Amino acid sequence: MKSDATRTLLVTRADLRCIVEEVGADALMDELIRALTEALRTFDGELTEVRKRDGFLTEHPRQPGCLEWMPVMQKGGAVTVKMVSYSPFNPEEQGLPTIIATNSLYDSRTGHLVALMDGVFATALRTGAASAVATRCLASPDSRVLGLVGCGAQAVTQLHAISRVFPLTEVLAYDTNPEAQASLARRTAFLGLDVKQVSLAELEERSDIICTATSIAVGAGPVISGKALKPHVHVNAVGSDLPGKTELPRALLEKSLVCPDFTVQALVEGECQQLKPEQVGPDLVTLVKNPDRYESWRQKATVFDSTGYALEDQVVTALFLRHAERLGLGTSVGLETVGGDALDPYSLLHEPGSAARGNLRRATGS
Amino acid sequence: MKSDATRTLLVTRADLRCIVEEVGADALMDELIRALTEALRTFDGELTEVRKRDGFLTEHPRQPGCLEWMPVMQKGGAVTVKMVSYSPFNPEEQGLPTIIATNSLYDSRTGHLVALMDGVFATALRTGAASAVATRCLASPDSRVLGLVGCGAQAVTQLHAISRVFPLTEVLAYDTNPEAQASLARRTAFLGLDVKQVSLAELEERSDIICTATSIAVGAGPVISGKALKPHVHVNAVGSDLPGKTELPRALLEKSLVCPDFTVQALVEGECQQLKPEQVGPDLVTLVKNPDRYESWRQKATVFDSTGYALEDQVVTALFLRHAERLGLGTSVGLETVGGDALDPYSLLHEPGSAARGNLRRATGS
Repeated sequence: MKSDATRTLLVTRADLRCIVEEVGADALMDELIRALTEALRTFDGELTEVRKRDGFLTEHPRQPGCLEWMPVMQKGGAVTVKMVSYSPFNPEEQGLPTIIATNSLYDSRTGHLVALMDGVFATALRTGAASAVATRCLASPDSRVLGLVGCGAQAVTQLHAISRVFPLTEVLAYDTNPEAQASLARRTAFLGLDVKQVSLAELEERSDIICTATSIAVGAGPVISGKALKPHVHVNAVGSDLPGKTELPRALLEKSLVCPDFTVQALVEGECQQLKPEQVGPDLVTLVKNPDRYESWRQKATVFDSTGYALEDQVVTALFLRHAERLGLGTSVGLETVGGDALDPYSLLHEPGSAARGNLRRATGS
Repeated sequence: MKSDATRTLLVTRADLRCIVEEVGADALMDELIRALTEALRTFDGELTEVRKRDGFLTEHPRQPGCLEWMPVMQKGGAVTVKMVSYSPFNPEEQGLPTIIATNSLYDSRTGHLVALMDGVFATALRTGAASAVATRCLASPDSRVLGLVGCGAQAVTQLHAISRVFPLTEVLAYDTNPEAQASLARRTAFLGLDVKQVSLAELEERSDIICTATSIAVGAGPVISGKALKPHVHVNAVGSDLPGKTELPRALLEKSLVCPDFTVQALVEGECQQLKPEQVGPDLVTLVKNPDRYESWRQKATVFDSTGYALEDQVVTALFLRHAERLGLGTSVGLETVGGDALDPYSLLHEPGSAARGNLRRATGS
């Protein structure tokens, strides 16, 4: 990015659409999986400071949600902060995604907001990519059947990402909401895969890989029984985002190698809540740095406890901003009161006058 | 604000300039002081959840800075989050303000980013307003001489705000940087006050009210001696923003009524770091709710320990957004990937095509 510390680049949903159209959805997912793998493989805790997610519980008549911040800093470089909300009744009540987010990039040396972009699409993509990375390390290489428990927005990118690293022959879809279950095939038609609606029992019995991505209420899990699973099953548990919310049976966790994305966070709000710390396996960084060490687990039960890792947001933000720069996309905005006399907050009043009334609410983006 | 959950209102520095020009700087400050007083007077911890500031220490060859988040939630309503950085060498090395910030407003019910605005100007204003509120409660009503220790950006709005609630006759300016000290009179000329450059000793001896707003390094304080102060002196200590950074002598704190803006935060990064919890006086909310209870302190030494309180950011953000709405200012942006099929992250690809290539980097704001 060019560094004009008086301007902020906005990357909107329309810009992301251009990027996907120019790059192609498959190529973009492949690039993201590669970039995430590389970021995990080269991760150095001395250079990168990742914070555990923190935030507010938000009120809702039926079930609480949350609004949280996920910060990560490259020391001496960029800070990426995702603000992300989980509002399980958004689709039904508002026609909005369950997960709404924005990703911000700051220059840690000055504090300047360099860029702000949509985080809804970016979160779906990076959550899929993280599952692909973990699944490649932990699932049997012969895996061909993917089961999706929960057929909402995240299921689309789980399927897309995993289909890029395994030659899937069959996709089994289950959701407690029949409409979501029925529409998944249409929403994933671009993949050309055989997506079947099945019972939960059939899904558990026949899947080599399972992704759980549900809005199960706090304390209401698990969302699968764990009975009759294949001995080599790999499960990506994606739905964890609140203390008390878990998707998998404890017995499955106890017999599996459980790899969290970010251990300290997973112990608070992931499947790892159900385990003692000593029962938790390697985190995603350790797994990706040492794939051979865990290869024998590919024939046994494994779980990726995906709570959402700020490093993933850093990677996807950087990737989209690189494409925006390359394609000349985004809108440059003079947002912060900088550029005048640094010692005079009122110097904004003395700047050349042209812009003052020229900024009346103009529509930008779609 | 109208609530179109698919669009975000950007309020830029050019918009803020319009607001100041339309409303007038004095009227705006008066309105902010009133709004802040009212928010403090009616504060209810059951309805408003304020988080202690948290963040990253940022690296700099000479002295660390920080990049922090300051969140506050109206339960069932809006969440305001200020991202704020303190980079003490910004003015000298980058021509940028020491404090750079952006304020975001979210709808807690959906997680949608309702608005994003500059926080540089807003922070200077609200920090001044907070000092005005505290000074009105704690300083002698006969105070006429204000001393400013540290003549940077914050000094301008400290002076402006306090001049709105006290009929100042004289302003004494001191800074270790002679250029900043010399230029303060020019930067505050709009107030029509008598601003004199003085020695620190003269300032301490003659001021009824003192504001310290410095970039003193961690562990390098205090910035005043505390000798020969007037018995009724009131000090607004504004510079605290990092653990270890303090501006006032411990002896002064120990003999004064010390009122922090936000006690749990002030104990970590304010002047209150130097005190035991039981030595800390009422917080700003308590003070404003019960001014009579503390009235006798107006003839004795008092300190406002201003670390920066997220409630202040909530108030100033709401105030600017109301003016932007009223004046038709701001830019509406389709930022988040919402508005398509809530269950399909790729639905952005299927939206009507007009906007796709129409969003090439356009300049917005000044």
